[in-house]
Amino acid sequence: MTIRQFLRPDLSDLNPYHVEQPPHRFKLDANESPFDLPTELREDIANEMKNIQFQRYPDPSSDALRTELSEYLGVDKGQIVVGNGSDELIGYLVLAFGRTDACVSFPTPTFAMYHILARIAGLKAVGFPLDDQFNLNEDSWQSHLDANRLNLAFISNPNNPTSNTFSAEVIRKTLSRSDALVVLDEAYCEFSGKTFFGELNRYPNLVIARTFSKAYGLAGLRIGYLIAHPEIINEINKVRLPYNLNRFSQLAALLLLKQHVRQAQKSEFSLRIQAILKERERVYAALQALDGVYPFPTDANFILFRTESHADKWFQHILDCGILVRNLSRPGPLLNCLRVTIGTPAANSKFLEAMASY
Amino acid sequence: MTIRQFLRPDLSDLNPYHVEQPPHRFKLDANESPFDLPTELREDIANEMKNIQFQRYPDPSSDALRTELSEYLGVDKGQIVVGNGSDELIGYLVLAFGRTDACVSFPTPTFAMYHILARIAGLKAVGFPLDDQFNLNEDSWQSHLDANRLNLAFISNPNNPTSNTFSAEVIRKTLSRSDALVVLDEAYCEFSGKTFFGELNRYPNLVIARTFSKAYGLAGLRIGYLIAHPEIINEINKVRLPYNLNRFSQLAALLLLKQHVRQAQKSEFSLRIQAILKERERVYAALQALDGVYPFPTDANFILFRTESHADKWFQHILDCGILVRNLSRPGPLLNCLRVTIGTPAANSKFLEAMASY
Repeated sequence: MTIRQFLRPDLSDLNPYHVEQPPHRFKLDANESPFDLPTELREDIANEMKNIQFQRYPDPSSDALRTELSEYLGVDKGQIVVGNGSDELIGYLVLAFGRTDACVSFPTPTFAMYHILARIAGLKAVGFPLDDQFNLNEDSWQSHLDANRLNLAFISNPNNPTSNTFSAEVIRKTLSRSDALVVLDEAYCEFSGKTFFGELNRYPNLVIARTFSKAYGLAGLRIGYLIAHPEIINEINKVRLPYNLNRFSQLAALLLLKQHVRQAQKSEFSLRIQAILKERERVYAALQALDGVYPFPTDANFILFRTESHADKWFQHILDCGILVRNLSRPGPLLNCLRVTIGTPAANSKFLEAMASY
Repeated sequence: MTIRQFLRPDLSDLNPYHVEQPPHRFKLDANESPFDLPTELREDIANEMKNIQFQRYPDPSSDALRTELSEYLGVDKGQIVVGNGSDELIGYLVLAFGRTDACVSFPTPTFAMYHILARIAGLKAVGFPLDDQFNLNEDSWQSHLDANRLNLAFISNPNNPTSNTFSAEVIRKTLSRSDALVVLDEAYCEFSGKTFFGELNRYPNLVIARTFSKAYGLAGLRIGYLIAHPEIINEINKVRLPYNLNRFSQLAALLLLKQHVRQAQKSEFSLRIQAILKERERVYAALQALDGVYPFPTDANFILFRTESHADKWFQHILDCGILVRNLSRPGPLLNCLRVTIGTPAANSKFLEAMASY
């Protein structure tokens, strides 16, 4: 009896996901919010938690949370499905729409899970290389899509890890294709201020993915959602695990939204986004002023930058100064590239000191 | 542009999971624990929650929880993977080991997710009918497995919804096959006192699935785990979402286990299991004494019973008395069958009153 005979040959080169976490004082590697939950919200959650019946299964449709989201966004709740992080929802998209004659297409470099989850679903997955400024060349991207009978296109916008947004015109052209289901991953849209949300009615093939993990600081609770045509949402629900979002996460996201909506434009979260954007400007300018360091334009809560050489040494030096960033350097388009998340002003200053002392 | 062209033809008859939840006073339909968390544990969780950094991603390997589990169980932590409920882990099993020449086999009637998740993974899934006492006939089950080159066999033991355990000899014969990977779903094993845990070393093709949702009363938080050979666990980790178990659920399960281990045999949870078993005996005897009601033998925290006729009317009458049970009646082996979860003594008495007053 050997386990090997049961393994899928097409996944033989897949490895378990692994992120190095060497010791550090400041964590600027995962595009997380530097802010913990507002005190008032923490207290709300602690109070409401007293009423959670932990022994009962969660609401399978996350109805209260979806209702609050639908009011917040101004769409019908039949256009929303929530998940245990966007990751889970991406997995459902490739499963629900994973026809054998479809190709999962995405500009590269980008978020690794599109490729990984497509392969696990047994689908053809082909990355399309961005140009040397990480822009999406319209003509060749369209030719790439032309080569397939059907496309599941994943576009991270702003794109992780390149931090830029793509031309709205290129995205619109993609949406106009009758052979493409287009998933726009707007995980970082609160930092770009750009969204295709307003175009959902125009494009029935548009799926928008959002998350509470970045601007809203709930990465630890894993809550993402999709907004799309109800017909698409219904198909996702067919392949969704019935109780995919636990009671506590449903509650926390609901209370966060209620507080955010109640406080309107001056909400703690809006102020935090502003603070991050201000810090981003400061960090970007400081990086630009350094010799041999080239930051790419950013529309997100992180900055990708290239060092003239020896990114590994830069990474180690920054780490020796107590700051963990993400080392993305490997032969190819990200050679000598590091990614830094915008943190608290103190963390950012420490990072900039480390950069300056290399 | 039409969504339909993107849909998988093989899933065209799949429907979103749906459970009716008509109004009721006593919920005895979902095999949940009737007990909320012990007060001391609730306080521990509330205290420790103050230290959770919600804005940070959870530990992708759930290391602290797996370490505690490995000490509790006495196995290496490399033999354990935790998930967002057993459902998620069943989904990973059919994805990781879902060779196109493998068949997902399971005795029926059983837990619906084996079939559903196998189909979503694109695998052949064939149920094998239990006999009229819901036992697994050894010879025909072996012939069923013989018909496939490779088998992913799922055996719920005790079986949901039939509530019995299968012959250990039949399970051992299944485990002895060199062409079968055998997943024993022991979600209810705390109520049967029977487990194949001790035979993990003997059978490298054995995967045991466990959950915190039933005896441990954490259904609302979605925490399941698999115990198996490290090579199997490693393959699951390749297809597992990196951050599948959120921070709060990791914490709650960890604290529950610590308390349970600290209190040893007299733990609140052990006492609760004893209380449920005592109530099960009482409910079973009372059902047996009723005319036209035939309970099946049970090794779980629920009882399946057949009514002589008109199960739908029985169901409605019980519901009219304020008690929600699960109506499983449809043409076939479960015709006129209802399933009742053992609840608090008060709820059970109300249920028995309802039954007696039909």
